Amino acid sequence: MRPDRNAELALLLEVAGTPKPGNVDRHRDLEDLRFEHFLAGAVGARDGLEMAADSAEVGPAFERAVEGMAEQDGGNTQFGALLLLVPLVRAARGGAGLTRSDAEAVVEGTTVADAAEFYRAFDHVDVFVGDPPADMEPLDVRRGSDAIPALEERGLTLYDVMDRSVPGDDVAREWVRGFERSFAAADRLADADGPILERAAAVFLSLLAERPDTLVAARHGEDVAVEVTDRAATLHERGALETDRPAVEAFADDLVDRGINPGTTADLTAAGLFIALERESVEI
Amino acid sequence: MRPDRNAELALLLEVAGTPKPGNVDRHRDLEDLRFEHFLAGAVGARDGLEMAADSAEVGPAFERAVEGMAEQDGGNTQFGALLLLVPLVRAARGGAGLTRSDAEAVVEGTTVADAAEFYRAFDHVDVFVGDPPADMEPLDVRRGSDAIPALEERGLTLYDVMDRSVPGDDVAREWVRGFERSFAAADRLADADGPILERAAAVFLSLLAERPDTLVAARHGEDVAVEVTDRAATLHERGALETDRPAVEAFADDLVDRGINPGTTADLTAAGLFIALERESVEI
Repeated sequence: MRPDRNAELALLLEVAGTPKPGNVDRHRDLEDLRFEHFLAGAVGARDGLEMAADSAEVGPAFERAVEGMAEQDGGNTQFGALLLLVPLVRAARGGAGLTRSDAEAVVEGTTVADAAEFYRAFDHVDVFVGDPPADMEPLDVRRGSDAIPALEERGLTLYDVMDRSVPGDDVAREWVRGFERSFAAADRLADADGPILERAAAVFLSLLAERPDTLVAARHGEDVAVEVTDRAATLHERGALETDRPAVEAFADDLVDRGINPGTTADLTAAGLFIALERESVEI
Repeated sequence: MRPDRNAELALLLEVAGTPKPGNVDRHRDLEDLRFEHFLAGAVGARDGLEMAADSAEVGPAFERAVEGMAEQDGGNTQFGALLLLVPLVRAARGGAGLTRSDAEAVVEGTTVADAAEFYRAFDHVDVFVGDPPADMEPLDVRRGSDAIPALEERGLTLYDVMDRSVPGDDVAREWVRGFERSFAAADRLADADGPILERAAAVFLSLLAERPDTLVAARHGEDVAVEVTDRAATLHERGALETDRPAVEAFADDLVDRGINPGTTADLTAAGLFIALERESVEI
């Protein structure tokens, strides 16, 4: 399939994978953010993903994907996932496989114009982000397109913007680390057993177990993010998805009840699913 | 959204609606036919649906949609739904609303060439159909493209083929009855309460309650189909989805356990979802 098709399918498989503790999944909705919002968000993102597959630059393709994604009433469903998928789709557009160096070349080739489109994307949807450092305050993404003059004055490319968002944003970290965890997730998906939605759940848990989720840290503090990761690590290490699934389901319900949403980990899972589909290392 | 986008979203919402007794839904898989197969089938159908939105004829668009749908390991996921959606998408392509007479004009305008593409679509996937009447035996759809010479000799359009498939196939019946039940389903979706997946489940049950499912009748006999509809009618009449949901869930589990799959009713639900989305009479 064309890479934009695989990207859309990755978004759908990600939200369907269950249990994905703290996230909307096949069996769980959050308050005001439901499964169908993710289905509509994935369909809405099509035009932007198609642009990336047709060699559009990352910025305009991302802005268009987010605009389409936001045409449902749930709010932000897949902003972070699209920030990973758009450059990956562009990297895969030649159809000659997809490597980390392909992906690195795409993000390193982004421009100031791409960064402007990234800021414009924030006009379409409320995205939760923490406060920026003082010297980045004029470039707070929450300003949306109002920040574009300051951005252009400083001459920052989209890669530069991502570079300045690390630490504290593990989506941005993928951009400056050659999509390290996204590709690792793809390898784990290929090596896992069972149907794809089981694999997606297993890989989500493994990702949550290895690093505190940066969305959880931004919303609830580092302590909560570490607590969540510690619990995920305990479950992951003892293979609880296979041996004690009720424990994982209880963990998932607990996070949903407390409003703790490891959304960055879900974004990485979507990116991993895309890479695995693109490499045909998983079958559906 | 463009009608092909709404059609894809309708396929996704249909499979996610739950409980949909006897069908794959958000909470149930069948043996060897799982939720992810429907997700991949919906994404795979994109190109054919796009063709219909871009004014391609019904036959080629349908054949392409089925070819793409079949690129997953679950087998036939949405053949019947696409046979309703493709003409509806073509009817909606002008963007000036979607009426029954628009849809009738599309199906009545189909040609012998469209019928040939319809037969070709059966080369891509195994579709369960009953035996045809003796005089239609050379045109048994299970022959796939091998039946095209006989088809051309008789000069049957796709509309003619559908006309000869009634009674016994309630998808074909929609073609010759102006998509009566599909539009009724759309009206019910608009009038129902709650989130769209709840509405989809309610409308599925109402459709199953009003006529025996023709796929169930073909596979298991008319008696079983009538039994299923009688049970659905009892549940529907006493508003069990709202007042006694466990009874509907038990009915759903029982049908899955017995391998009884009212797939035609699911196809009609998908068509109703598309019409309601296209008319913007439901929101997500």
